[in-house]
Amino acid sequence: MMAAFDTLATLLGPRFATSDAARAQNGRNEAHFPEALPDAVAYPQTTAEVAAIVAACAAEGIPVTAIGAGTSLEGQHLAVRGGISLDFSRMDRVLAVNAEDLNVVIQPGIPRTALNEALRATGLWFPIDPGADASLGGMAATRASGTTAVRYGTMRENVLALEAVMSDGTVIRTGTQARKSSAGYDLTHLLVGSEGTLGIITELTLRLHGQPEGVLAAICRFDDVEAAVNCVILTIQSGLPMARIEFLDEMMVRGFNLHSGGTLPETPHLFVEFHGTPAGVAEQAQSFREIAEDFGMADWQEATTTEDRSALWKMRHSAHYASAALRPGVRTLATDVCVPISRLAEAITKAKALATEMGIIGTVVGHVGDGNFHYAVRFDPADPQDLARTHDFAGRLNELALALGGTVSGEHGIGLGKQKYMGAEHGAALDWMRRVKDALDPKGILNPGKMLPPVA
Amino acid sequence: MMAAFDTLATLLGPRFATSDAARAQNGRNEAHFPEALPDAVAYPQTTAEVAAIVAACAAEGIPVTAIGAGTSLEGQHLAVRGGISLDFSRMDRVLAVNAEDLNVVIQPGIPRTALNEALRATGLWFPIDPGADASLGGMAATRASGTTAVRYGTMRENVLALEAVMSDGTVIRTGTQARKSSAGYDLTHLLVGSEGTLGIITELTLRLHGQPEGVLAAICRFDDVEAAVNCVILTIQSGLPMARIEFLDEMMVRGFNLHSGGTLPETPHLFVEFHGTPAGVAEQAQSFREIAEDFGMADWQEATTTEDRSALWKMRHSAHYASAALRPGVRTLATDVCVPISRLAEAITKAKALATEMGIIGTVVGHVGDGNFHYAVRFDPADPQDLARTHDFAGRLNELALALGGTVSGEHGIGLGKQKYMGAEHGAALDWMRRVKDALDPKGILNPGKMLPPVA
Ligand SMILES: Cc1cc2nc3c(=O)[nH]c(=O)nc-3n(C[C@H](O)[C@H](O)[C@H](O)COP(=O)(O)OP(=O)(O)OC[C@H]3O[C@@H](n4cnc5c(N)ncnc54)[C@H](O)[C@@H]3O)c2cc1C
Ligand SMILES: Cc1cc2nc3c(=O)[nH]c(=O)nc-3n(C[C@H](O)[C@H](O)[C@H](O)COP(=O)(O)OP(=O)(O)OC[C@H]3O[C@@H](n4cnc5c(N)ncnc54)[C@H](O)[C@@H]3O)c2cc1C
Repeated sequence: MMAAFDTLATLLGPRFATSDAARAQNGRNEAHFPEALPDAVAYPQTTAEVAAIVAACAAEGIPVTAIGAGTSLEGQHLAVRGGISLDFSRMDRVLAVNAEDLNVVIQPGIPRTALNEALRATGLWFPIDPGADASLGGMAATRASGTTAVRYGTMRENVLALEAVMSDGTVIRTGTQARKSSAGYDLTHLLVGSEGTLGIITELTLRLHGQPEGVLAAICRFDDVEAAVNCVILTIQSGLPMARIEFLDEMMVRGFNLHSGGTLPETPHLFVEFHGTPAGVAEQAQSFREIAEDFGMADWQEATTTEDRSALWKMRHSAHYASAALRPGVRTLATDVCVPISRLAEAITKAKALATEMGIIGTVVGHVGDGNFHYAVRFDPADPQDLARTHDFAGRLNELALALGGTVSGEHGIGLGKQKYMGAEHGAALDWMRRVKDALDPKGILNPGKMLPPVA
Repeated sequence: MMAAFDTLATLLGPRFATSDAARAQNGRNEAHFPEALPDAVAYPQTTAEVAAIVAACAAEGIPVTAIGAGTSLEGQHLAVRGGISLDFSRMDRVLAVNAEDLNVVIQPGIPRTALNEALRATGLWFPIDPGADASLGGMAATRASGTTAVRYGTMRENVLALEAVMSDGTVIRTGTQARKSSAGYDLTHLLVGSEGTLGIITELTLRLHGQPEGVLAAICRFDDVEAAVNCVILTIQSGLPMARIEFLDEMMVRGFNLHSGGTLPETPHLFVEFHGTPAGVAEQAQSFREIAEDFGMADWQEATTTEDRSALWKMRHSAHYASAALRPGVRTLATDVCVPISRLAEAITKAKALATEMGIIGTVVGHVGDGNFHYAVRFDPADPQDLARTHDFAGRLNELALALGGTVSGEHGIGLGKQKYMGAEHGAALDWMRRVKDALDPKGILNPGKMLPPVA
């Protein structure tokens, strides 16, 4: 590897690191995977630098794994085959706020909260909000979503155009600043969700939304899971334009209480939010309450001030860490199934029954308006029995989701952890994904070992 | 070709035709391209038949060109290299209405009006409405849109999953019934808009929307183009959730008057529609009128009855034929640029000035909420000067769109007519589209001669 490393050290100076500290920093993960260290870390600042890095690696077949905030939950950012970790933390500028076209052009390393900070004065915002303060490049690469996807869509719907460095170092642009196009193959969507295995994203044009004039958030308590979930199903089926509708089971509520000293009654809850004109918001909330009352809603608390609202969603976004409080000192495996809305009650109740039967300790939380929920299982990877049970549980839940017409991943992606389900979910289509990969990255240098399972 | 033809004649019986009438039927187009006849027409009824046809053609390298309603405007459905025309008119069933999941599973040959007819009793609808009664397979393959895309998106946003026959006859499924997924490469979006060059769509799962409770449509007259277009720009920028907002220039209005004996004043118009709750619709209409009045709206006529509303949109959908009335007996070349909304006024005024300067006879009509408009130029392909002028005009308009950050095709696609602009729009990305094509259709049998220009 030496020739490429010398080239890159010369090109990047101190922004090319082979120190243990730099390598270790990018070798960690928030999930349950063992550490995996790159041989070196490059911190590019420009597209030209990224192109030069990829070209140098291509010449010698060195793996290149992009990393944004390193918060992905399936080990996507881990350089499991070594090589170079392409760290986007210094490529985090807002390049153009095109308020009059409701879009923004950014570098990939910017975290989602910093982006919204930069947009605040414009009256516009970018709604997609994974629990972590992820980078927009990482979010595009994993096709991320969050609490607002039920209203505003996922990264799939909100990336208008990309600039990317392909596997030989070529820089391409996909899409234009226009809102729609029928000109050619949709390379934008091919790159979104490809987990850095088809190209490296160096610039994104994102669709922005107007900050809603009226906002109303509320905490809605139920006595049992079925009632809460059936309320969600009917709400979605009735076409009510929910801005957010999040489910939390009694264990998740206990986690919040333990984690942040809250006092919510430990029964299933929905956290909801409505966006619109002030009159529209009131009308929506009223319609929702009527549905919830039909399902025996036990309590309804509106978050009236901006501070209350922030506290509510901050709590929701801390779910990953709050789950940890149920069993400290071990790791989390978060499942991520997404099912058709009509099968949601069945999926959640079966998952909970299975967890009880198998002795699983964990929480259920989810973007249920999309049919997506997570079982965050706390387990000890060092205990073989616990490990086997946890993977067995996750596997059975994934099979259930597929049997119900759903997917094994609503938003976290495949990475290392879900490759074993790719065949079951995609069948013959998996071969055609491999063809795309081979065509766009013939040397296999882009994030090798991810997404596509080894050929059997 | 004889072996494959024999096989198919045996397989399909009378549903395999080599008659002049059948071939001529699929060799026509609504645009300005010369006739191009396939060698034979196959009328499959099942996915298995499509797979068998493609496999037989693959074995002998015979071109396969899918055809839905044959209404595409860039010659996409024409079998310019001969071979087989795969006619989906008999594969037009609704397979499952999943009302509780807001989706429908259909065969590709069903026309959009028949689909909505089948959905009527469910309270749901599929909003995308090109002017023609296109097939859903053709609409997916061209990434079509229509008057409602400003609110509901295009085929890009509304195809959830596909079944497709790939170039060797393999049947694959892309996507699930879940609303979102991060599992693997987005083959659904790769096939949507690929004009039958990467795979043959045999089944579609489409997202449905609730039929709006309240609907209000209106005709809104302006004295000049700038005022009308600036009203559109501000409306979109203000985030008003328009269901439809269509621009028509004075020539288009004249076309309507000539075509259907109307009496609209021949000045620029906007046709608008609002969807929501009855109260919401009134509120939206009021907000819109305030904006329109600021731009000097000259007249506002609400279409109060369902019949009035149908008549309004029927008139709009007849634009292609109404334009013909301005100069009967010749052909139409419809440009299809789409620009960022902030550049829309500049694009339309420059296009109109250029048309005047060049002596172009035509109409301007468009889905302007998306920044998309068409110059429907009437010209005589047999007159070399007229032909050259028309193509020159279209080329200049396309260059203008690209210079403004837009695309040469908002919705009609590339087909035969726009290949010459693919390099200018996509630059280096065009090579990567070719790599995708070569990987998925190595023998080049799927709709050869379309979309990708010959390698220079
Ligand atoms: C507490 C917590 C809560 C979470 N909640 C959610 C949630 O609600 N919804 C959700 O979707 N996810 C959630 N996640 C998962 C994670 O935040 C998302 O997957 C996120 O999109 C990852 O972004 P990142 O910047 O951290 O990417 P990384 O982890 O750095 O990388 C993820 C993948 O993207 C690739 N990548 C990164 N940058 C680029 C680039 N510029 N070009 C090409 N490829 C690139 C990497 O190679 C890797 O394959 C959560 C994670 C945590 C820890
Ligand atoms: C009067 C008029 C108005 C129009 N208005 C609009 C408009 O507002 N918006 C708009 O977007 N378009 C419009 N168009 C263009 C046209 O209607 C669209 O392009 C439409 O999507 C074509 O559908 P079709 O069924 O006619 O497809 P065809 O013309 O039959 O085929 C189009 C392409 O799709 C491919 N194809 C068809 N079926 C399949 C399949 N099952 N699998 C794979 N590939 C397939 C064909 O090979 C071809 O490449 C208009 C056309 C006319 C004549």
